[in-house]
Amino acid sequence: MPNLKWNHPKTVELKEYLLTGRTRTEAFLERYMAALNIPDRLAEAMRYSLFAGGKRVRPALAIAGFEACGGVGDAVLPLCAALEMIHTYSLIHDDLPAMDNDDFRRGKPTSHKVFGEAVAILAGDALLTQAFEILSDGREMAGVDPARVTAVIAEVARGAGSAGMVGGQTIDIMSEGMEIEAALLEELHSRKTGALIRASVVSGALLAGGTPEQIAALRRYGSNVGLAFQIADDILDVTATAEELGKSTSDEARGKKTWPAMHGLETARTMAAKLSADAVTVLEPFGNAAWPLRAIAEYIVARKN
Amino acid sequence: MPNLKWNHPKTVELKEYLLTGRTRTEAFLERYMAALNIPDRLAEAMRYSLFAGGKRVRPALAIAGFEACGGVGDAVLPLCAALEMIHTYSLIHDDLPAMDNDDFRRGKPTSHKVFGEAVAILAGDALLTQAFEILSDGREMAGVDPARVTAVIAEVARGAGSAGMVGGQTIDIMSEGMEIEAALLEELHSRKTGALIRASVVSGALLAGGTPEQIAALRRYGSNVGLAFQIADDILDVTATAEELGKSTSDEARGKKTWPAMHGLETARTMAAKLSADAVTVLEPFGNAAWPLRAIAEYIVARKN
Repeated sequence: MPNLKWNHPKTVELKEYLLTGRTRTEAFLERYMAALNIPDRLAEAMRYSLFAGGKRVRPALAIAGFEACGGVGDAVLPLCAALEMIHTYSLIHDDLPAMDNDDFRRGKPTSHKVFGEAVAILAGDALLTQAFEILSDGREMAGVDPARVTAVIAEVARGAGSAGMVGGQTIDIMSEGMEIEAALLEELHSRKTGALIRASVVSGALLAGGTPEQIAALRRYGSNVGLAFQIADDILDVTATAEELGKSTSDEARGKKTWPAMHGLETARTMAAKLSADAVTVLEPFGNAAWPLRAIAEYIVARKN
Repeated sequence: MPNLKWNHPKTVELKEYLLTGRTRTEAFLERYMAALNIPDRLAEAMRYSLFAGGKRVRPALAIAGFEACGGVGDAVLPLCAALEMIHTYSLIHDDLPAMDNDDFRRGKPTSHKVFGEAVAILAGDALLTQAFEILSDGREMAGVDPARVTAVIAEVARGAGSAGMVGGQTIDIMSEGMEIEAALLEELHSRKTGALIRASVVSGALLAGGTPEQIAALRRYGSNVGLAFQIADDILDVTATAEELGKSTSDEARGKKTWPAMHGLETARTMAAKLSADAVTVLEPFGNAAWPLRAIAEYIVARKN
């Protein structure tokens, strides 16, 4: 990776960094999934959603957190795979008729449209469980201090569970079509999207043996970037076309409260930019090792899909 | 616990042993759930199913496996709670309209009848994730060698995931109403019920630091007891009344293949008894420390609900 100064945008370098992370994560996932002894239809449904063309933002954040704390090599890949499995399970379950009832995701029919509801639910359950199987796998995690492994698992579980992502999705479902306060919208998004994004960067740092100060800084970085990511998503939902997003119904049309609807488009843009800038500030002590984290914080509010 | 000889039935002692395990597990679950910071409705749905009067067979097996390998004290309770959370999540998801579409479970309306499908799905997701959060929680697992913790998590994840319980449920759903071979029925049940039961006793043993020989023996015990448990369940489904079982539709009426339907009632009884006896045989090297495991193997094929 070129050793550039970090205080100006690095679009080309970041693209290369994200592509490398995506390629490594997908190669790991391919190998790992091929070795599983599971019923064909279940494997098919798991693979269908797992390889549906995700941007692999969470693996990129895990790798960047890992490297910012001095981690090197492929020890981070099981974590990348686990995070992507959890993210994928959450999309499958969110799309179900009883939840958001979405027919398309990333331009492809959703899991339950292809495999039926029962298999879609089970594919989600399987991916969630598999994530923890990878993280605790003695072969995949060979050579990693088990104390770090348990810290990583705890971080990921907290981000994904009732205090994090599942809790946020519950608030989202319960508040659909209702008037909600700005504070609840922030809590909803901090949990639903923010918690797993924060867990991605923090678990990467824990895996590398980051100091308590480093972990605290990256926790703040992750909170800010996670919320900025969701606000940017809401802005895109209003400003981008369905074709650009690959989904059929806007959140607003579904009666979901969005940041632009709550605060206006310009204020929402300002909030996202402020969160991104604050995220960059806490990275100062990491020096150049954190250039990808800086570039990701900038990219997340500037992206077009 | 009275130091009895193990080679005759110990109904009274086992009842006391199971009751103690249930009480300790439920006290742990109560305390743990009360400390969570999660949306009210989600917590309500999680608690509703978690405290619906389960027999807590898996915690009892975990405690018995733990003690058979020399484990003492409360270090096993987080594992008991995690296993019960995973078992509970699997019941909530199995009962969903897209799956078995059951309105009653243990005499009470099922989760989706009370909370709606969306919250039922999320409560299941939350319980599954929470299980891994407990197992990796530095406070709950304080003082336990992290290498043992990761081995326990791996064992539980394998039992619950696509190679185990979720894989079995997929085969079950895919084969409903179809003619299936005896070998597939055995694979279905070994995975759907057997895998988590085996994981319960083995993870208890791993937590106590059991030797490879002990782990291998208890793995065989768990496989046999797990399958015997499912065959006994099928037999009860045919012979017991709906009131005794607390559910409204028999598996057979739903077009599910059962052991009595496949092999006849008497042969099914003989198979369950043989599996139970084989399970008891492998316990020999454990001596008296394994009396609860022996009693459980015998109880599982003799129970009435």
